[in-house]
Amino acid sequence: MISDFSKEQWSAVYRAAKDEFSTYCTRCLNLDMSRGKPSSLQLNVTEGLLQALQTNEDCYGEEGTDYRNYGILNGIPEARRFFAELFEVPAENVVVGGNSSLNMMYDSIVTAMLFGVPGSVRPWSREKKIRWICPAPGYDRHFAICESLGIEMIPVEMKADGPDMDRIEELCAADDSIKGMWSVPKYSNPEGKTYSDEVVRRLASMKAAPDFRIYWDNAYIVHDLADKSDKLLNLFDECVKAGNPNRVLTFTSTSKISFPGSGVAAMAASEDNIKALNAVKTFQTIGPDKLNQLRHVRYFKNKQGIVEHMKRHAEYLRPHFDVALKELNLQLKDDGYATWTVPNGGYFLSLDLVDGSAKRVEELMKQAGVVITPAGAAFPYHHDPKDRNLRIAPTYPPVEELETCIRLLCVCVKLATAERHLKSAN
Amino acid sequence: MISDFSKEQWSAVYRAAKDEFSTYCTRCLNLDMSRGKPSSLQLNVTEGLLQALQTNEDCYGEEGTDYRNYGILNGIPEARRFFAELFEVPAENVVVGGNSSLNMMYDSIVTAMLFGVPGSVRPWSREKKIRWICPAPGYDRHFAICESLGIEMIPVEMKADGPDMDRIEELCAADDSIKGMWSVPKYSNPEGKTYSDEVVRRLASMKAAPDFRIYWDNAYIVHDLADKSDKLLNLFDECVKAGNPNRVLTFTSTSKISFPGSGVAAMAASEDNIKALNAVKTFQTIGPDKLNQLRHVRYFKNKQGIVEHMKRHAEYLRPHFDVALKELNLQLKDDGYATWTVPNGGYFLSLDLVDGSAKRVEELMKQAGVVITPAGAAFPYHHDPKDRNLRIAPTYPPVEELETCIRLLCVCVKLATAERHLKSAN
Repeated sequence: MISDFSKEQWSAVYRAAKDEFSTYCTRCLNLDMSRGKPSSLQLNVTEGLLQALQTNEDCYGEEGTDYRNYGILNGIPEARRFFAELFEVPAENVVVGGNSSLNMMYDSIVTAMLFGVPGSVRPWSREKKIRWICPAPGYDRHFAICESLGIEMIPVEMKADGPDMDRIEELCAADDSIKGMWSVPKYSNPEGKTYSDEVVRRLASMKAAPDFRIYWDNAYIVHDLADKSDKLLNLFDECVKAGNPNRVLTFTSTSKISFPGSGVAAMAASEDNIKALNAVKTFQTIGPDKLNQLRHVRYFKNKQGIVEHMKRHAEYLRPHFDVALKELNLQLKDDGYATWTVPNGGYFLSLDLVDGSAKRVEELMKQAGVVITPAGAAFPYHHDPKDRNLRIAPTYPPVEELETCIRLLCVCVKLATAERHLKSAN
Repeated sequence: MISDFSKEQWSAVYRAAKDEFSTYCTRCLNLDMSRGKPSSLQLNVTEGLLQALQTNEDCYGEEGTDYRNYGILNGIPEARRFFAELFEVPAENVVVGGNSSLNMMYDSIVTAMLFGVPGSVRPWSREKKIRWICPAPGYDRHFAICESLGIEMIPVEMKADGPDMDRIEELCAADDSIKGMWSVPKYSNPEGKTYSDEVVRRLASMKAAPDFRIYWDNAYIVHDLADKSDKLLNLFDECVKAGNPNRVLTFTSTSKISFPGSGVAAMAASEDNIKALNAVKTFQTIGPDKLNQLRHVRYFKNKQGIVEHMKRHAEYLRPHFDVALKELNLQLKDDGYATWTVPNGGYFLSLDLVDGSAKRVEELMKQAGVVITPAGAAFPYHHDPKDRNLRIAPTYPPVEELETCIRLLCVCVKLATAERHLKSAN
């Protein structure tokens, strides 16, 4: 264990790591492990989707409606039922939109800023202050929305089974200016954790402002990697049971099921929430791209079709996670350099280093030609208070490149840790 | 001419119209002439678009980029050039978006409300009052956006060659709270008028607030009906020449070129305007549906392809306009019951009746089973100060139904006019 290392041992680690690092630097690498996206090879598993609609006759819905034309603000009934089966909620509680669930989330928050939500006294933008619960580490684009709209973020620590509920309950009970909370409740970004039933129930039933909203970004709803898949309790149902039906807005999309840029996004929410959002959305658009919705339903058919399809994605992704975990185990396991998560699904690994070394590792990686997600990116205001967390996105690079990246990462972790120890020893 | 009619003549008109109206009522019609949309038959001219992308290999752009994946906020370069040719502006001034130009307009105004635009002192929502120039009659969904966001609308009369520029110049020079103006400058909705070169030049060069923006909704940019097509001066160029490059945001879409619900929308604007909008949009979405953009470019190829395609739309639409105009001419011409426009393009006719009779005609049509665009819909706050304007949307119903609708309309116009005269004579 590194906690027992003598100064001489650290010097030896430093020299060995420095040598290895220098060798990597001479290789002129130019690799990118920064974003959680599928590679082109992986996207090929969805071949055939584009052929699901071909002729004029293909464009009519189950009730004879011509889906090429304007209208149908909530999305086509076929797609609402399709996502209802995924969300496990009634189809009338589902709205199917365009190609981006982030866009739906953003628009719904902007709508709340300008008009409020059911339960609001006034538009959120007219409140003195709006605050938001941000389990951290979390998804950088969630936090960026708050930052851009001037919503104050309150980081809350992620535990093994979800965010620190004692803290969240305490905060929400005491402060009506807390209007929302981000969450990626299944295979969380970046840690791959899934909220426990207890966490879900406490979120549903805790005391909070009447216009408090949980943004339940179920981005990895069917994105299992392993045979063993995590089960997430249905927050929508729990909120109904707890008498807080308006508390949750659930989102997902097919971005990582079909195509990241040309998928279909959907939201599940209470009748009141949908009605309030539509009262604004009706001014924004005449309707979503219904043909792309139909294309997806025709291709995937139903949840069973999606589950089968996701196995093909998993077959592609598993070797990426396997090689990353193998290298981490080989180089860093049990030595005390780092701990990491071993998720059953999702798109990320999360690495916790010795405090104060994440930024340095990012810097070293960059020097050697590998871009990783910036240290701190997974925290509100890009600020990791312990400067220890790195998000690893193993999905995009080819396996051989990924192997190189992770080996280099382990070298950089050792080098950065040794630097810190030697510096503090001086 | 009805202005010379005696009371007896009006009584005779009333009785004849009333009889005819009663006969229509017994036919139990159930027709809709309310919205300016293509019929399914018309949409069939775009067969083949859905086959433009079929395989994995089809999804790569000209520089090898995989358009299935995330990213490219401004749209794919192929589509930016494609719309640049239509707009007659440089491609770097074009942003290509999702399926709805209305959505792009709405989002850009919401962005201005929350953050302002280049030239703003503060976000528009923090101004005491925001006002907007609304040439009327105009597009109901434009006005609805203002109404929903609490922007005060100032109606300005439409003349033969565009809005009353004397009035607009006077208003904008005197009042910095006027932040914008709606316009459908070519084949205007609903009158089918095209702004003259002089109007365009005056809009470009007039005095106005530094953050005044003209929303130039060039929805019918290539939507000619006749062999003779209207020419619209390029406001983007004129604004640059006049030293007001940020004044105009130009929009269009393929909604009435390909499919209304699954087309591609685009905006042209100055570099500063695009930069300011993107600074916000980058939080809203990772990017538009690039495959649908590519599908459109592959299918239509370029402006010449669009122009050829629009001839096929015109072949379908012309009989609709012809039959409507034929009936109006047969029943109402030169009698003084109404005047109407004979546009060279677009989707509408606009009918001006005797003052105070539009609502009554709408009501009578409804009684007889035909829905038309509500009287007043083409005016800010749904208020036609003279209650005389009706928008006729001849495109959607089959020609025979349309013929029935217009014949009935003429009967209702006569009946409503006679009612008014007889009432005022009593």
